[in-house]
Amino acid sequence: MNIGKYTFDEFKEVVRKFHGYVAPGIIIGGYMVEKAKSALPEGVIFDAAVETVWCLPDAIQLLTPCTIGNGWMKIFDFGKFALSLYDKTDGKGFRAHLDISKLDSRPAIKTWFLKLKPRSEQDTGKILEEIRLAADSICTVNRIVIRPEYLARREKNSISICKLCGEAFPSYHGDICPACKGQSPYVINEQ
Amino acid sequence: MNIGKYTFDEFKEVVRKFHGYVAPGIIIGGYMVEKAKSALPEGVIFDAAVETVWCLPDAIQLLTPCTIGNGWMKIFDFGKFALSLYDKTDGKGFRAHLDISKLDSRPAIKTWFLKLKPRSEQDTGKILEEIRLAADSICTVNRIVIRPEYLARREKNSISICKLCGEAFPSYHGDICPACKGQSPYVINEQ
Repeated sequence: MNIGKYTFDEFKEVVRKFHGYVAPGIIIGGYMVEKAKSALPEGVIFDAAVETVWCLPDAIQLLTPCTIGNGWMKIFDFGKFALSLYDKTDGKGFRAHLDISKLDSRPAIKTWFLKLKPRSEQDTGKILEEIRLAADSICTVNRIVIRPEYLARREKNSISICKLCGEAFPSYHGDICPACKGQSPYVINEQ
Repeated sequence: MNIGKYTFDEFKEVVRKFHGYVAPGIIIGGYMVEKAKSALPEGVIFDAAVETVWCLPDAIQLLTPCTIGNGWMKIFDFGKFALSLYDKTDGKGFRAHLDISKLDSRPAIKTWFLKLKPRSEQDTGKILEEIRLAADSICTVNRIVIRPEYLARREKNSISICKLCGEAFPSYHGDICPACKGQSPYVINEQ
């Protein structure tokens, strides 16, 4: 079964180029994205929400117009293997998740998903073959409506110049930028 | 001046396809990524940090192996137009930022970056032409060392099944998944 415009093997190659390696999670994610997309009415302009930072955001970025940098994909760091696509005007859409109740005949996927064995004892080739055979049959799609606060267009507000580092940042942070206030991810930052 | 393996026009097309439109921020970001990359020693395996959710993460995802889904790109939501690439073993690397002090002869870029006029009064074509001429001359690169806590490989831990929704999630959240605990982004989620 194709994944959007790609065959299974073509999508594996697209994933390898973007994500660095063929992670089972993105391939399943590809089927999830397409199943949610096909539930939406034709022509709907949609945004995406994803409930994990792992793998799935890349499936969305590869198969929809939604990316982290354009703001059309929101990430909720719950560690849940689920995503939704919804009409960006009214928030109505569909959520797809990998459904544990559909994994009894897919032992390699189940072992991978629930971490029933250490990764080193699992066979990625076997997991991918089960995914190819299962396609979107292991995903369940249900209706959702996103909370209205997530429909608001993100605003950038006005710009201030930090009194300490001299760099630009959004004025709503105050006079000093978040990095200079102590949130810098660097131990050394040689200006 | 090329942006990695792309000419300026090729990169615009790559950006349009991935990001949906040619945002000035990603084109400048492309020059920033390449300038930081060229400062690293040859062959270093690097991770990325980016100090805004706007545009720049997509420049990193298009020009490096680092994506949000593979965990090699960390996002700090400071609203600062800066990114760094650093050796993933020792955290030493380089940070690139768009340097306000280098924008006096680039009025369209300066107006765009500091929001000196409403967007509707700015000319995207003119901004892009100034970016093409400026290339990486408007970016400043400096040495950084990332905090050791950001060098740690992210761990997924073991998996629990939520007692309410029946879906899988990381055990460290407790017995109930974050969505069922009240963090769900949905007002309606028809199971």
